[in-house]
Amino acid sequence: MGQAVENESATPVSHKQVSISDPFWSYYIDLVRDVVVPYQWEALNDRVEGAEKSGAVSNFKIAAGLQQGDYYGMVFQDSDVAKWLEAAAYLLAARRDSALEQIADEMIDIIGLAQQEDGYLNTFYTVKEPENRWTNLTECHELYCAGHMMEAAVAYYEATGKRKLLDIMCRFADYIAEVFGDGPGQMPGYDGHQEIELALVKLYRATGNSKYLELSQYFVDERGQQPSFFEAETERRGGLSHWSGMPMKVDLPYFQAHLPVREQLTAAGHAVRVVYMLAGMADVAREKGDHTLFDACKRLWDNIVTKQMYITGAIGSMAQGEAFSVDYDLPNDTAYAETCASIGLIFFAHRMLQIEPDSRYADVLERALYNTVIAGMSRDGKSFFYVNPLEVSPAVCEGNNKNYNHVKPVRQEWFGCACCPPNIARLLASLGEYVYSVKGTVVYSHLYIGGKVDLSVGGATVGLSQSSGMPWSGDVRYEISVDRETSFELALRLPDWSESASVRVNGETLDLTGLVKDGYVRIEREWSNGDAVELSLEMPARRVRSHPLVKVNAGKVALQRGPLVYCAEEADNGAGIEQIVLPAKAELHVSFDASLAGGLNRITADALRLDYAEWGQSLYRSDASVRLKPERATFIPYYAWANRGKGEMAVWVKEQP
Amino acid sequence: MGQAVENESATPVSHKQVSISDPFWSYYIDLVRDVVVPYQWEALNDRVEGAEKSGAVSNFKIAAGLQQGDYYGMVFQDSDVAKWLEAAAYLLAARRDSALEQIADEMIDIIGLAQQEDGYLNTFYTVKEPENRWTNLTECHELYCAGHMMEAAVAYYEATGKRKLLDIMCRFADYIAEVFGDGPGQMPGYDGHQEIELALVKLYRATGNSKYLELSQYFVDERGQQPSFFEAETERRGGLSHWSGMPMKVDLPYFQAHLPVREQLTAAGHAVRVVYMLAGMADVAREKGDHTLFDACKRLWDNIVTKQMYITGAIGSMAQGEAFSVDYDLPNDTAYAETCASIGLIFFAHRMLQIEPDSRYADVLERALYNTVIAGMSRDGKSFFYVNPLEVSPAVCEGNNKNYNHVKPVRQEWFGCACCPPNIARLLASLGEYVYSVKGTVVYSHLYIGGKVDLSVGGATVGLSQSSGMPWSGDVRYEISVDRETSFELALRLPDWSESASVRVNGETLDLTGLVKDGYVRIEREWSNGDAVELSLEMPARRVRSHPLVKVNAGKVALQRGPLVYCAEEADNGAGIEQIVLPAKAELHVSFDASLAGGLNRITADALRLDYAEWGQSLYRSDASVRLKPERATFIPYYAWANRGKGEMAVWVKEQP
Repeated sequence: MGQAVENESATPVSHKQVSISDPFWSYYIDLVRDVVVPYQWEALNDRVEGAEKSGAVSNFKIAAGLQQGDYYGMVFQDSDVAKWLEAAAYLLAARRDSALEQIADEMIDIIGLAQQEDGYLNTFYTVKEPENRWTNLTECHELYCAGHMMEAAVAYYEATGKRKLLDIMCRFADYIAEVFGDGPGQMPGYDGHQEIELALVKLYRATGNSKYLELSQYFVDERGQQPSFFEAETERRGGLSHWSGMPMKVDLPYFQAHLPVREQLTAAGHAVRVVYMLAGMADVAREKGDHTLFDACKRLWDNIVTKQMYITGAIGSMAQGEAFSVDYDLPNDTAYAETCASIGLIFFAHRMLQIEPDSRYADVLERALYNTVIAGMSRDGKSFFYVNPLEVSPAVCEGNNKNYNHVKPVRQEWFGCACCPPNIARLLASLGEYVYSVKGTVVYSHLYIGGKVDLSVGGATVGLSQSSGMPWSGDVRYEISVDRETSFELALRLPDWSESASVRVNGETLDLTGLVKDGYVRIEREWSNGDAVELSLEMPARRVRSHPLVKVNAGKVALQRGPLVYCAEEADNGAGIEQIVLPAKAELHVSFDASLAGGLNRITADALRLDYAEWGQSLYRSDASVRLKPERATFIPYYAWANRGKGEMAVWVKEQP
Repeated sequence: MGQAVENESATPVSHKQVSISDPFWSYYIDLVRDVVVPYQWEALNDRVEGAEKSGAVSNFKIAAGLQQGDYYGMVFQDSDVAKWLEAAAYLLAARRDSALEQIADEMIDIIGLAQQEDGYLNTFYTVKEPENRWTNLTECHELYCAGHMMEAAVAYYEATGKRKLLDIMCRFADYIAEVFGDGPGQMPGYDGHQEIELALVKLYRATGNSKYLELSQYFVDERGQQPSFFEAETERRGGLSHWSGMPMKVDLPYFQAHLPVREQLTAAGHAVRVVYMLAGMADVAREKGDHTLFDACKRLWDNIVTKQMYITGAIGSMAQGEAFSVDYDLPNDTAYAETCASIGLIFFAHRMLQIEPDSRYADVLERALYNTVIAGMSRDGKSFFYVNPLEVSPAVCEGNNKNYNHVKPVRQEWFGCACCPPNIARLLASLGEYVYSVKGTVVYSHLYIGGKVDLSVGGATVGLSQSSGMPWSGDVRYEISVDRETSFELALRLPDWSESASVRVNGETLDLTGLVKDGYVRIEREWSNGDAVELSLEMPARRVRSHPLVKVNAGKVALQRGPLVYCAEEADNGAGIEQIVLPAKAELHVSFDASLAGGLNRITADALRLDYAEWGQSLYRSDASVRLKPERATFIPYYAWANRGKGEMAVWVKEQP
């Protein structure tokens, strides 16, 4: 399967090997199974009253000749079906469900009928513009949609053993490999929205057909070459935009097509595309042992996480182009911070972790997961945030439509561009995949999520049963199942949020001196069946401050406990959240509140509030400074915000030094 | 001339009575005469290479039948010609200039030819949609354009004694008075953009015809009555917008038409319209002795200046609708802060000052004038700011087009919607009008601008010759010219920026105890010819802080000296303006710099700068606070910013307590 970077990448652990049973996460996974996936199926079939029309399933039926009608929706509507199928596949892998499987099989039959003779599959072009196939890669997501369906095909094959969708997508991939390339008669192109790159690597891994890996690498390396494929294509098309019908100038950085990917120094343009691209680049780097490509991944990783990421693991600070801005420009109120971008960041982090097991990747993965991703969905699984601001004032948002029209103070039921809800579903349904990996004889536990896993370590089978108090306590316990005494290292991540940890093996405390490498405690021993490892991570409520160059957070502090970032909401603190001042020395009290969002730890503190009663009416004064009055402040985990109606919210509050 | 509010409003002093000769302001007035007015005439005639086309003069020629062609430009393009003529009239009043007068006379002849049989005058409707006259008051500015031409007509008549334009506009006003009203066959309407209200009062004062005052009051009181005229009109028109061609919902607060004006509690909607409206309301209140209308003016005045005004005297904090936002929402970087809105605020303040001489009106007038208005124009009079932000980061503005497309880091040559440049010209050309007023036997000096004025006080003629060191020093001197010993009170404003003042009369220091009323020192005596009064206002560089509810300015400080608000620019401080931290105790040094913008006082201080070298790479840390390193910081007056190329700028900087 190719030469890995450093010649020893970790083996990914499939979600199929992991069964999650966790007081925190099982709720979400059950929600995906019981509510989100069924609800989304109804939405994709246009059967949810009051929700925006999707058209996604009927587009396939029309393309399949099973139904009359017009194409409906975005040009990339097919991908919603693909992401739904992928999520369904993960659910089936965890637990077979003949009703769900039948729905999926029927959908796959329709997809098969919608496929064209030559292997081509895309309902927009098939139904609406058959003559324009491959004429607008810049804007129209043909390869993006293909990629999502490839991911679904691999997941469905792995879940059920059924090859039908896999074969459909191999045929399409074979056709794509004929169309694109540098050979005679081929088109030297790539897609405006990255996705097929990582999907082709999955197809390669599932089939062993290296043609798919080569095609992925081709797309990766072709991007950003000069003269620009996108500019040439747009000119051939007469220069008009698919979206506006108006003349367009191709904004190359938006598409990460301004430079070859190996030469890009900062994350620029549409944030989701950047991280999908990077996930694909990491895949290719790993499979091909390509160091310079891996270096490019690391360079952009560093740029994102040290200069362009919100404390919640959100990325993409501008609504303009749903894009990265300049370094350290991280406005809290006008943030775009798309849910899908954090999901893509998790994909990227996960791949980096396989190549180079280092806790810095898992720290970011965890940050995005516990904060932005689950904030993206309501507790009932029926409404979603596309945009995840870190500060909201509903009155200002509603008055100032220009700057805030993308910001919604409450979750929405469905979206015309419905990328985020099915993306959350497929991530949560495959969450097991992110917990462990194996590299040589080292078993890594990246996340602390309860459940069981069966691993193959140096030829032996190792079972781990994890129970975890996260995110409310830092107590984690593993029980080892082995057939016979087995040597391996168990590597437990020491998260960036914990200043001290203790580990006990069969009740005996370990001296960790010399055992920590790349952010993991590595416990090497001859393990016996029933051995127990207890990890205890200190998890105080902590004050976090921003890099001095993040100007909007100057003089401000955020609270974090364990992986959870906290926020102050109007429901707890009254209106005027920005008037809260948290003294640097105020004690932070943690208490469990069972009443909100399934139960959570609040943080309360004896804080202060700006006291403007004495200031008087003047807007500007030279002879006064601001007074403060004592007031209790309450913070809840960010993921649980906006579950009590519309109100103000802020992650960063003023700090009194 | 009607019963004044409180039955004793001040007598306005015409710009004709005042001749300005001042080291600071004469430059601007000469610039208007020598550069701005000639340049704008060329621009209005489409003879400036590289500037946006205006079409304004040729529209009149086409309407007059003197030229073939199509109407060009905004629906309110006529008003640019009107504002230019008004500025030209003020220049002619100060100094006759036969070449300029000939140009103006010829333009007026064309305007006369463009007037229709029935008195109607508007080139858009005459040339382009004659059948649609008076069908879109909501959006199309017919009465707004009429108002501006009435102002020009009055100014030109007063300057030259020539009645032609005055007669044209009286004919038009007579016709408007037939069309609008509650009588049979009349239309119960008013304009989407206020302006005619204040213009009709000028016409009334110039002609003595009370019909114009009554019509003004009608427009004032009709606004915001229910059912809504704008909604009904829009429905009659088929519901489509003139601007977009799309169905429109009338945003009544945008037009200040959501409530009758006497019931409006906060300034809402398009900022220029609000202050033009309030100026007209104050005029009507004064002429009619209408207390409830004056109370409405005071209520909205208070709302603007205590909750919605920038420290620079700018108003309108949202680009969305060029509008007021909610109370205390005063973002520095996305501010709209239109130059015209500050000019309108000056109009409003000036009228309030006539009714109720209180320094709080003059303080705001001065703040807007010395900061936003002159910041609006480059030192060479050839480029302009439409939008006046208090903080600019060019890199962020350019990347984030959605939030910042209205913000330009450098002044522009001309605008498709060219309202601001001619508005600056007419304000500066009539600046004399704002310096003094007389109420009974009290002579008020509101502003400290050198020059001569001849006043009529209780039957006697009083000459004042003022010399002023403002804005660089607070030393002002008056010499009194009287034919014979004359009793009157000289009232000198004590600005809000000066904590102490001394006054000497003929070299003898006055004891001010008991002499200060409503913010003015009132010196009552029998004045002799040659009497000299010296006012010395303390003018230290001062730190100013914002009301605690202005969240973007929390922990920040601005510098002000005299009326001038200061800012830090990249040209002096290097990039990263937001890293400047000014200790609360740092000494502020004032020094004159002759090299910049005609010479100005800089303020320098031993400040600090965020030192992020030691912070490391992490975006977020719990174990570090921000370090500071010493660095000299330099501030220049805000009005002089952006005269050294494109760079960062901020009025508010961080303060170290």
